[in-house]
Amino acid sequence: MSELRHDPIQRRWVIIATERGLNPTHFHMDKESSSEAFCPFCEGNEDKTPKEIYAVRQPESTADGPGWRVRVLPNKFPALRIEGDLERKGVGYYDNMRGIGAHEVVVETPFHNEDWADMSVANISKIMQAYTLRIQDLCNDSRFRYILVFKNYGKGAGASLSHAHSQIIALPVTPINVAVELNSAKEHYHLKERCLFCDILQYEIQSGDRIIRMNERFVAYAPYASRFPFETWISPRYHSYDFAQSSATDLTYLAEILKDIVMRLNRSLNQPPYSFVLHNTPNIRGEKKRINWWETIRYDWHWHIELTPKITPIAGFEWGTGIYINPVAPEKAAKYLREVEI
Amino acid sequence: MSELRHDPIQRRWVIIATERGLNPTHFHMDKESSSEAFCPFCEGNEDKTPKEIYAVRQPESTADGPGWRVRVLPNKFPALRIEGDLERKGVGYYDNMRGIGAHEVVVETPFHNEDWADMSVANISKIMQAYTLRIQDLCNDSRFRYILVFKNYGKGAGASLSHAHSQIIALPVTPINVAVELNSAKEHYHLKERCLFCDILQYEIQSGDRIIRMNERFVAYAPYASRFPFETWISPRYHSYDFAQSSATDLTYLAEILKDIVMRLNRSLNQPPYSFVLHNTPNIRGEKKRINWWETIRYDWHWHIELTPKITPIAGFEWGTGIYINPVAPEKAAKYLREVEI
Repeated sequence: MSELRHDPIQRRWVIIATERGLNPTHFHMDKESSSEAFCPFCEGNEDKTPKEIYAVRQPESTADGPGWRVRVLPNKFPALRIEGDLERKGVGYYDNMRGIGAHEVVVETPFHNEDWADMSVANISKIMQAYTLRIQDLCNDSRFRYILVFKNYGKGAGASLSHAHSQIIALPVTPINVAVELNSAKEHYHLKERCLFCDILQYEIQSGDRIIRMNERFVAYAPYASRFPFETWISPRYHSYDFAQSSATDLTYLAEILKDIVMRLNRSLNQPPYSFVLHNTPNIRGEKKRINWWETIRYDWHWHIELTPKITPIAGFEWGTGIYINPVAPEKAAKYLREVEI
Repeated sequence: MSELRHDPIQRRWVIIATERGLNPTHFHMDKESSSEAFCPFCEGNEDKTPKEIYAVRQPESTADGPGWRVRVLPNKFPALRIEGDLERKGVGYYDNMRGIGAHEVVVETPFHNEDWADMSVANISKIMQAYTLRIQDLCNDSRFRYILVFKNYGKGAGASLSHAHSQIIALPVTPINVAVELNSAKEHYHLKERCLFCDILQYEIQSGDRIIRMNERFVAYAPYASRFPFETWISPRYHSYDFAQSSATDLTYLAEILKDIVMRLNRSLNQPPYSFVLHNTPNIRGEKKRINWWETIRYDWHWHIELTPKITPIAGFEWGTGIYINPVAPEKAAKYLREVEI
């Protein structure tokens, strides 16, 4: 079974997922890319996937048959397994625990070639609602510290199947990038008794230079220190630490701005691959066991989405240092996306 | 001119390098890749590059003419500029300083198709020596906190020109990935009065499972929590915080193990793209101005090289979280590389 391993130097957890059964020879650069003649995510092929966990269905339809709009499945090749205890242990100088977690796939549409830019706002908001329900359910398991929702769109962003889908991974650790953000927010709150994100959003909205689009409840902007050209963060304009508590109306406004941003990217950059990552609060039931910082998280944390087109190659410099060279000023990227006609 | 910008949430510096003059339209995905009919790094084309900063030359040859073995040049499209003051300032909630630094290119060979696997150990060690001399020189400038040496091999790792070259960037900040490692090492030293890296190397050499190769002075191993398949770290077996103080003999042993590892990667993975990043000590003249942690760095830090083949696509999950899914156990990768016949 797979393992989580902690590096004492870089202080990050890594999933060693050996059970996918890949041998080192698998990585020989000449191998053919797998063909995609058959798609298990298309309507009518429900018997080729694991049994569904959740679905938005027509009233007369039955589970694991046709007649659905959004369908959530266990990942057939999960990076983490749901059964068992973590069994934390030391291994020489290292820390180790078992690869316990959940790995689900959200099939976003019954149609093979439909993506967010093509869907109605109502249908995108059904995907968002599926996220909230799965997060709520997975949060009942106190082994899980963090429920990660993400989407890789296009081969360049790592998507292995082209049929629109996103993924949900329940992790027994809070990811380091999120942990750094949580700490920044907590320290800011400690000093000022205000939310760091609310402060930044107020500043950004007032300046306007890096705003790409706003609606009544959400704002999409290019962060001041964008790592990548056209990097876009989407935040609720109201303070909220937990995405999973979003109302139906909130999710409709979110779907509206997501569709808008993806259409702008498609129009201006010709359907670039992108990644979509939800930075939500950690799971209260899991994380509060360890440290006592839950008390203020309702006030200090502000969930947001990081949407990053993958249009520049990542070089060794970025990997080895965490310093990124971004050739487009965020103000310029924001202006360009803001002015695109969609 | 370009800027360095600090993100208060993710706590990392980003170089906003607008002066390359790229417009957002540049990133339209249909663009042709630039052809490489002419190579400015080949011997005989010295007049097509900026004037050399350093070269290993035949006695009778003259600067910026033929007759060299290794040649160091200013980067024609530098991410950072050498002239001026940093002018640190606050911008709303953000921190800003000017893009001051140095950006040099090390042309590693006069021959267009020669790489480390083809070169003699003596010639690779001349490249290593060029690194040490440039680091020493750039460290005289107290504006520079960190001198970063790296190499992107192959298009997949971000190399824009195929002629073998590496890069040196002098930065006014210590890169966050290195800073995390420095802190880990410092905390370990504070507790144990021993070097974290020396402890880990002792453990790894004793266990042997993740060792790829050793010679008298260096060891190449797969780190316990490798992020990527075949990730390889190369460390001196003796304690040393500063690569730039390596002796000629040290550099020869280093060149020997580098050539060996690259040959193993080429043989087993068919010339994969890779990145090579030197994690050296920060610059004493720059960094000590800020905080008083220089006192113990001679004892707590241990320079090393991170050599990472780029054979798996990086997906949104990795970017958005800092959690990596590695499908090959480091023990398996190490065994495979150890047993390859070269």
